[in-house]
Amino acid sequence: MSLKGDVSTLSSQRPTSKDAIVNLDRGDPTMYEAFWKSAGADADTFIPGWTSMSYFSDATKLCFYLNAQLTHQIRRLHNLVGNAIAGDDRFIIVGTGSSQLFQASLYALSPPDAAEPMSVVSLAPYYSTYAPMTDLLQSRLHKWAGDASKFAGDRYIEIVCTPNNPDGSIREAVLCSGDGKTIHDLAYYWPQYTAITHAADHDIMLFTLSKITGHAGSRIGWAVVKDREVAKRMMHYITLNSIGVAKEAQLRAEKILQVVSDGYENTPNPDVEMKLFHFGREKLAVRWRKLVEAVQASGIFTVPSFEPAFCNFIGEVTENLPAFAWIKCEKNEVEDLERYLKEKGVIVRGGIQFGMEARYARISMLDRDSTFDLFLERLSAMS
Amino acid sequence: MSLKGDVSTLSSQRPTSKDAIVNLDRGDPTMYEAFWKSAGADADTFIPGWTSMSYFSDATKLCFYLNAQLTHQIRRLHNLVGNAIAGDDRFIIVGTGSSQLFQASLYALSPPDAAEPMSVVSLAPYYSTYAPMTDLLQSRLHKWAGDASKFAGDRYIEIVCTPNNPDGSIREAVLCSGDGKTIHDLAYYWPQYTAITHAADHDIMLFTLSKITGHAGSRIGWAVVKDREVAKRMMHYITLNSIGVAKEAQLRAEKILQVVSDGYENTPNPDVEMKLFHFGREKLAVRWRKLVEAVQASGIFTVPSFEPAFCNFIGEVTENLPAFAWIKCEKNEVEDLERYLKEKGVIVRGGIQFGMEARYARISMLDRDSTFDLFLERLSAMS
Repeated sequence: MSLKGDVSTLSSQRPTSKDAIVNLDRGDPTMYEAFWKSAGADADTFIPGWTSMSYFSDATKLCFYLNAQLTHQIRRLHNLVGNAIAGDDRFIIVGTGSSQLFQASLYALSPPDAAEPMSVVSLAPYYSTYAPMTDLLQSRLHKWAGDASKFAGDRYIEIVCTPNNPDGSIREAVLCSGDGKTIHDLAYYWPQYTAITHAADHDIMLFTLSKITGHAGSRIGWAVVKDREVAKRMMHYITLNSIGVAKEAQLRAEKILQVVSDGYENTPNPDVEMKLFHFGREKLAVRWRKLVEAVQASGIFTVPSFEPAFCNFIGEVTENLPAFAWIKCEKNEVEDLERYLKEKGVIVRGGIQFGMEARYARISMLDRDSTFDLFLERLSAMS
Repeated sequence: MSLKGDVSTLSSQRPTSKDAIVNLDRGDPTMYEAFWKSAGADADTFIPGWTSMSYFSDATKLCFYLNAQLTHQIRRLHNLVGNAIAGDDRFIIVGTGSSQLFQASLYALSPPDAAEPMSVVSLAPYYSTYAPMTDLLQSRLHKWAGDASKFAGDRYIEIVCTPNNPDGSIREAVLCSGDGKTIHDLAYYWPQYTAITHAADHDIMLFTLSKITGHAGSRIGWAVVKDREVAKRMMHYITLNSIGVAKEAQLRAEKILQVVSDGYENTPNPDVEMKLFHFGREKLAVRWRKLVEAVQASGIFTVPSFEPAFCNFIGEVTENLPAFAWIKCEKNEVEDLERYLKEKGVIVRGGIQFGMEARYARISMLDRDSTFDLFLERLSAMS
């Protein structure tokens, strides 16, 4: 097979030909563009040139750059979906993506004067970027210590990602010690991906606009935080790291989240269905069905299977439809699935980066239809 | 004097009464709102809900999230003003404010496997935030080492801020060694603040929208970088720290910078003067004249004085009109100027944070007219 162009060229762009490279390495959520096209003017953002110029939104608030309307829409959405306790007695801290909030959380939970760095762990397979984010500056505050199930000690920060990136599993903390801390990465705890079985209520919960509505380019994430001192330390990190978060992105996030909640609570036009979570579920259900068929037809791949559960939000038993497929190759001679798929023109992220064997790989399920279909076509030809 | 409210409450908000607290601690550039109000619809930004959703703008580019139109407007503005060499043979890297780019630059210039952290220095008085940004994570890569004039050694990163924050002085690097590196912070090297005497051409030059147009809330900064490997390492930092920069803020920055250049090159309506740098100069000239008068009348304060120079952009000899006033109190019994002014209801940043004596303080010259006037009134009453 001849592959046109550099391996990176088609990342997040439509494949231009049948033999183009398909890049499903990053979870670029362009699947949602179709939904927002149908939303029309309600989802547009307009920003006059002289507004939102200051560093501050409300200097009396802990999160001094955060627009009050965005806080309102975040609390409203959690209340509507029922996936997290995020009322007025919780601090909302907005970050430049949940990446920045992850780093702010590590900073906040690591004592500044400890003899040894805090160990940061997560059960394998874990999100591939936790390790390099933790160790980026070779900090004396914290260090990556790998798989939580292999960790022995009392002082740690455990990252609990549920549903888990990359494998979609539903998780709880695996460690339990009085001195241990947890960060809950709930990026995928939304009804298009999994059943909402309870309102999560942890010390630090991280969310990101990218995986809810598909607006990855906005770099808007938020943390729901219980403790004021932890929230203050997170704010110290964000203030020094970037003096806050772009106001324009906040204004758009506020608008976009309003359209999502209005679609369920306050439909302006009852003839037009604007139910984002239902759109996401329908798309992903079709994609997962096709993927499972292709995987079974191949005879050489497997994907995890999940128990359905009752979703309080949808009001019925729903399937787990993860944002990533965690694929394993059962063919003995394929020891490195990332390399094997690359030779076939499909760019994915290999298992080693997630703390697992190289015969696993993570594949984004959130790209555009044309990209996903081309991937499936190519997968079906493998055996 | 009775002071209403908490000390932080009026930061960047209009003082509500004669005895309100005046906060000039941060350089919130709200002075520019008046200019952008007069710009009208040309400076407005409109963002359809389904656009700019991807992480990527052009995955074939090193700075994968950067919109091509913003790159174009950045290069165009430097070419118009003549303050920096920023043509196609230089890398433009956009960051979430120049804060993030400062940290990315430190990361890029610090060898990952050195026995000792790189020493980061700057001539005192230096920008108060360099030290806490450098040491935020207690990195093994770099550490703050204070005043460059007191540094002995060959391995260092020298930050050269010119015109300098806080004192407005025109600077060059003070250290010189084969192993030394420099970062040039040129946030204030624009014609409203100082004479443009040459096109700067250094290894890493940092700029920020905040101080050019007043859009601090957008958190848009950029670096002009000569070396590809340095640019790649900066991108590695930004990719892990925040996976890029908000697209909405990029779209607005592009629009705003276009209006600035059009005001000089391509005026849509010749009856309306939209010359940002001239607006800034006029405002600052009036403020500096009033400030110097008040300072002289007080008999207890002094501010630096500067030699005028020929500005290639304005086409005549112009005064230095810094964005901050660096005030010294000559009254013997006032050893802590920050505290002294706080008692009078004026919040400023004291000299200690800039590596100097406490009888110095930095005062923002970029706030709204009403705030600046109230400050002057209060200053005039001191003696």
